[in-house]
Amino acid sequence: MIVVMKVGSSEADVKSVINRIESSGLKTHVSQGVERTIIGVVGQIFPELQDTLEMLHGVDEVIRVSKPYKLSSREFHPLDTTVKVGDVTIGGKEIVVIAGPCAVESEQQLFETANAVKATGANILRGGAFKPSTSPYQFRGLGEPGLQLLAKVRKELGLPIITEVMATDDVELVAKYADILQIGARNMQNFYLLEEAAKVGKPIMLKRGMSATIQEWLLAAEYILAQGNGQLILCERGIRSYETYTRNTMDISAVPIIEKVSHLPIIADPSHGTGKWYLVTPMALAAVAAGADGIMVEVHPHPDLALKDGAQSLTFANFENLMSQLASVAGAVGRTLAGSSTKTKR
Amino acid sequence: MIVVMKVGSSEADVKSVINRIESSGLKTHVSQGVERTIIGVVGQIFPELQDTLEMLHGVDEVIRVSKPYKLSSREFHPLDTTVKVGDVTIGGKEIVVIAGPCAVESEQQLFETANAVKATGANILRGGAFKPSTSPYQFRGLGEPGLQLLAKVRKELGLPIITEVMATDDVELVAKYADILQIGARNMQNFYLLEEAAKVGKPIMLKRGMSATIQEWLLAAEYILAQGNGQLILCERGIRSYETYTRNTMDISAVPIIEKVSHLPIIADPSHGTGKWYLVTPMALAAVAAGADGIMVEVHPHPDLALKDGAQSLTFANFENLMSQLASVAGAVGRTLAGSSTKTKR
Amino acid sequence: MIVVMKVGSSEADVKSVINRIESSGLKTHVSQGVERTIIGVVGQIFPELQDTLEMLHGVDEVIRVSKPYKLSSREFHPLDTTVKVGDVTIGGKEIVVIAGPCAVESEQQLFETANAVKATGANILRGGAFKPSTSPYQFRGLGEPGLQLLAKVRKELGLPIITEVMATDDVELVAKYADILQIGARNMQNFYLLEEAAKVGKPIMLKRGMSATIQEWLLAAEYILAQGNGQLILCERGIRSYETYTRNTMDISAVPIIEKVSHLPIIADPSHGTGKWYLVTPMALAAVAAGADGIMVEVHPHPDLALKDGAQSLTFANFENLMSQLASVAGAVGRTLAGSSTKTKR
Amino acid sequence: MIVVMKVGSSEADVKSVINRIESSGLKTHVSQGVERTIIGVVGQIFPELQDTLEMLHGVDEVIRVSKPYKLSSREFHPLDTTVKVGDVTIGGKEIVVIAGPCAVESEQQLFETANAVKATGANILRGGAFKPSTSPYQFRGLGEPGLQLLAKVRKELGLPIITEVMATDDVELVAKYADILQIGARNMQNFYLLEEAAKVGKPIMLKRGMSATIQEWLLAAEYILAQGNGQLILCERGIRSYETYTRNTMDISAVPIIEKVSHLPIIADPSHGTGKWYLVTPMALAAVAAGADGIMVEVHPHPDLALKDGAQSLTFANFENLMSQLASVAGAVGRTLAGSSTKTKR
Repeated sequence: MIVVMKVGSSEADVKSVINRIESSGLKTHVSQGVERTIIGVVGQIFPELQDTLEMLHGVDEVIRVSKPYKLSSREFHPLDTTVKVGDVTIGGKEIVVIAGPCAVESEQQLFETANAVKATGANILRGGAFKPSTSPYQFRGLGEPGLQLLAKVRKELGLPIITEVMATDDVELVAKYADILQIGARNMQNFYLLEEAAKVGKPIMLKRGMSATIQEWLLAAEYILAQGNGQLILCERGIRSYETYTRNTMDISAVPIIEKVSHLPIIADPSHGTGKWYLVTPMALAAVAAGADGIMVEVHPHPDLALKDGAQSLTFANFENLMSQLASVAGAVGRTLAGSSTKTKR
Repeated sequence: MIVVMKVGSSEADVKSVINRIESSGLKTHVSQGVERTIIGVVGQIFPELQDTLEMLHGVDEVIRVSKPYKLSSREFHPLDTTVKVGDVTIGGKEIVVIAGPCAVESEQQLFETANAVKATGANILRGGAFKPSTSPYQFRGLGEPGLQLLAKVRKELGLPIITEVMATDDVELVAKYADILQIGARNMQNFYLLEEAAKVGKPIMLKRGMSATIQEWLLAAEYILAQGNGQLILCERGIRSYETYTRNTMDISAVPIIEKVSHLPIIADPSHGTGKWYLVTPMALAAVAAGADGIMVEVHPHPDLALKDGAQSLTFANFENLMSQLASVAGAVGRTLAGSSTKTKR
Repeated sequence: MIVVMKVGSSEADVKSVINRIESSGLKTHVSQGVERTIIGVVGQIFPELQDTLEMLHGVDEVIRVSKPYKLSSREFHPLDTTVKVGDVTIGGKEIVVIAGPCAVESEQQLFETANAVKATGANILRGGAFKPSTSPYQFRGLGEPGLQLLAKVRKELGLPIITEVMATDDVELVAKYADILQIGARNMQNFYLLEEAAKVGKPIMLKRGMSATIQEWLLAAEYILAQGNGQLILCERGIRSYETYTRNTMDISAVPIIEKVSHLPIIADPSHGTGKWYLVTPMALAAVAAGADGIMVEVHPHPDLALKDGAQSLTFANFENLMSQLASVAGAVGRTLAGSSTKTKR
Repeated sequence: MIVVMKVGSSEADVKSVINRIESSGLKTHVSQGVERTIIGVVGQIFPELQDTLEMLHGVDEVIRVSKPYKLSSREFHPLDTTVKVGDVTIGGKEIVVIAGPCAVESEQQLFETANAVKATGANILRGGAFKPSTSPYQFRGLGEPGLQLLAKVRKELGLPIITEVMATDDVELVAKYADILQIGARNMQNFYLLEEAAKVGKPIMLKRGMSATIQEWLLAAEYILAQGNGQLILCERGIRSYETYTRNTMDISAVPIIEKVSHLPIIADPSHGTGKWYLVTPMALAAVAAGADGIMVEVHPHPDLALKDGAQSLTFANFENLMSQLASVAGAVGRTLAGSSTKTKR
């Protein structure tokens, strides 16, 4: 941490800042510039100290130098983390495809979709049983019966399932059925939920909050990792900007940034990232070209009849088209689609 | 709802859209423009229908006309809502001042602060026992002992208390102690928490989410009102913008907007809204000048020693200064500070 | 400037950074932390050096310490700047009111408005002869005839005039007529225009760019001040955020921030800041309560017939109402409306 | 255009709105909903009418239905526009690569870079002679001598050149040397410059403004097209968001959106889009995967010695690496790099 004194601050001011720092058991390095004095702080810094120092007389600014996240950073964990779910490895050389309906609506809708996406090469089935809704008057999911349908599909088709958990009270229930627990964007800073979900010990996918910086996202990840659960996948799903054409602005640069600063795998969700089905394929290709470890997309047998988020859902035909292009782009960046080696004639 | 057809869409397209709408039990009005056809939809609209229609062939855009919130809107409830807490009325002619430390740290800190803010004219004491922290390594509050200290202060000083509840599991506990339950910005779309907190039947203060639109905020309010709890106060606390000088960009215009579109009282929190103590007073004055029903500010005996958010906390002297200016500005817009009539020589 | 080395960077890396800095004629201070080495840079820093150092091997981050603006900062010019226009002083104790139509449309419209706003207490007349239009198909101003009308009004009513200049080629022309040259938000970083306008030597009002940070705004001001023209007024007019209810999000906190970090006067424009006439009065009051040196508002005899920005224009009656409230709020913060002492019976 | 009346508006209100519309020579369609009346407006709409109608008594909202841009829209010009510069076609099946230094610094720097990027497969040389600088104390380009160096390179190496024009006064000068005139992000709404540049008749590249919506960008394009110059290329270069890790947030989704709503070619600039050289390659690949017609990147022989934007410049080795990956990704989406067929052994 570095304390920048104001131009013209007095020696007494400088001394008082130094005393405050050293009384916290830390060391200081003073550097006298042309215009100002700068005080370096050395040692393990108590996070609130920054606020404190900013208020002392003569202080202009306090600048953090070390990153506030540790367990999620590549500096402290140089090798890539991989997460295993059934036969699928997320974060390795293979690109993982997660597909399925936004919400589980019925047995027929779920089986039809699951069969279609499996046949087309998806590795994991997505489907929400508990749905966050901006309005209380919208469809909020089937609840446990939805989870049971997901489990039934897994049993019959052998596809691992990912589904969202929205409340600490539901963690145990959802964990009974899910292979991966999804934490949604609106809950990225629901810190109790992060900790409760982490304790279950199952893989977790943490979506980026709608207005979360990369750093805040990694700090949320820190809540999960600090519980000893390292089976964590990040998911970029678009951020809020001033642009209204898309539902969110998908921050594709988050993909190579996460790869650089963290060891955690990163997945892209172009369905929520754009909100428009016709942007899903180009943005999925973009994410994989930029280095994503996989994609998560919404597929529905009849998007125009979907109870939730139909406008961003792919038809089966659109999904097939996405997959064939995705295989090419994955190849172009030296990767393959997971499971594709075992398939013939893609 | 209005369906705008593409330029050059066929009669068959138009017919198919009309059929889809009418099969949902709604009526249509067709208007043939120079370039395009427009279809008005009449009747109580199922919210997902918009998504559905957007996907039909020949459709360019679907535009909502009616507002998605009802119970929180002034159209459906023209008169101002007032919330009574002890002797204090929020949302009436009087300006209510909520003050206290960000977090309850100790009995001494809390009593010292409570005495000071009461003597200066605060009406309600704030203080967090459960604190949301972006990082898991920061101070997270005293928990129940913190609540007990708040209750003790109320008993001795007669100040009602507001404190945050962060988890459904804590609702009952917090409600045992608090006069107003606060829902924080990070939890504005934690829909389970909204509903559980609402069921308790005590007054609730709902902070605006960091990247929530006015409409999303009112939809979150709708979750509370739909539980039959009308004792609801809104609180503007700054939104996320690209500007980095302040912690958040305080959207003062939200104050007159809420007053126009909703009947709910609106409070401003310039401490979180700016993140810098020296901006708290000017922004508190601005909020009241713009029509706010009250302010909530952080006060600490020694901001430089605060365990949380010291940089945005006022000293006792700063708070006194704020209060004397606030009384003037309140007077200038035809209001008075709550409780001030019973005081002499302000 | 401070260079933060990566965790585990080598001594050779550190040495190479030091060499690079010292070869630019600057001095270094090395501070060895627990995890990393930090290098302080002392001396007058060439701005591009930051980019350069960020690319050197082993460097994690380069942090600027001194502010990049000088002439506009309060550190280098502690006393408030005041700008005199006719009898009016902007930036002193008195609140200045600038009012008039968005665009000059006709002699009748201009005179009618000018008479009305003068009678109500406005100090300066605004009115655009050159109008920036997002679309090429919209009204773009009367051009020089509009300027001539403004000059005629000034002669007859004695009101100084402010009007926008949009192009370097028009600077001379506009300066012939205007008392204050306005640089619009879209041109805040049109650096040639800033310099040409500055050279004229007349007072300038510089509006904040739609997505400009406070720092970028002050750097734009620096372009004007560096030409030796210190007659500069800043104008907050709303920034772009994700909120769509208002045309812009008016950043009231910019008012006290500018007052703290700069010596320049600051005016608020709630007409553009909100885009809705019914928000203009509350936001004007808020700006003055927060410390603004004045306001600029759009007034039109028949807003519903205005050729430009009618939705944000006040009627004469609305403007009168604003002025009477503004006088009260100004008084509440220890100020008066400019010229009001010479008026009777406000 | 559609006028939505308030719930409970009177018949007289509706009538008065209809009269106002019909007095502008337009027709109306009235649709009586359950709660409100909606009035459709038919005919060629004068843009300011929207503002006007919003102010009439009883009106809740006025919604535009037709898009405000015409010449740039795909509806009015279904076929792709291609722009020819020398042997290169932008907007066709081939991916065009524009590369070179941010600023022309010296003959040696320019030739060295031009030779390197040409040998690696770049099709067009970029290089700024006039540079916009946020601060007046930074390097602002060589001016005409820089242009002369660019012309010299073109003559010797046969590479077409693109360079920025920042002022109407410089249009003629820049046009004398450049093959493509670049309008920078800060000037996207400098409408005089758009028109003057358009009149020259040479190809223009219009960068998206830092906080411009897609619609505003296309309206700026409209200024150029309305001058009869159809040789227009759009360039996405990142938008301003709350995220501070990157210099801008590159909106890759703008690529497929432009492709859908407009016929104009779209290029991506990942150098400005991210501000960090190590993000340039992944984001270039992402843009092409999403459908971009080309990329523009900054290359410098010694980024650590660059006078401008070194941190986002690629070394020659990094550029070679980019190009080989780009060829693969282009192939994966059914395209090829321009000129690559004439090269052997890529």
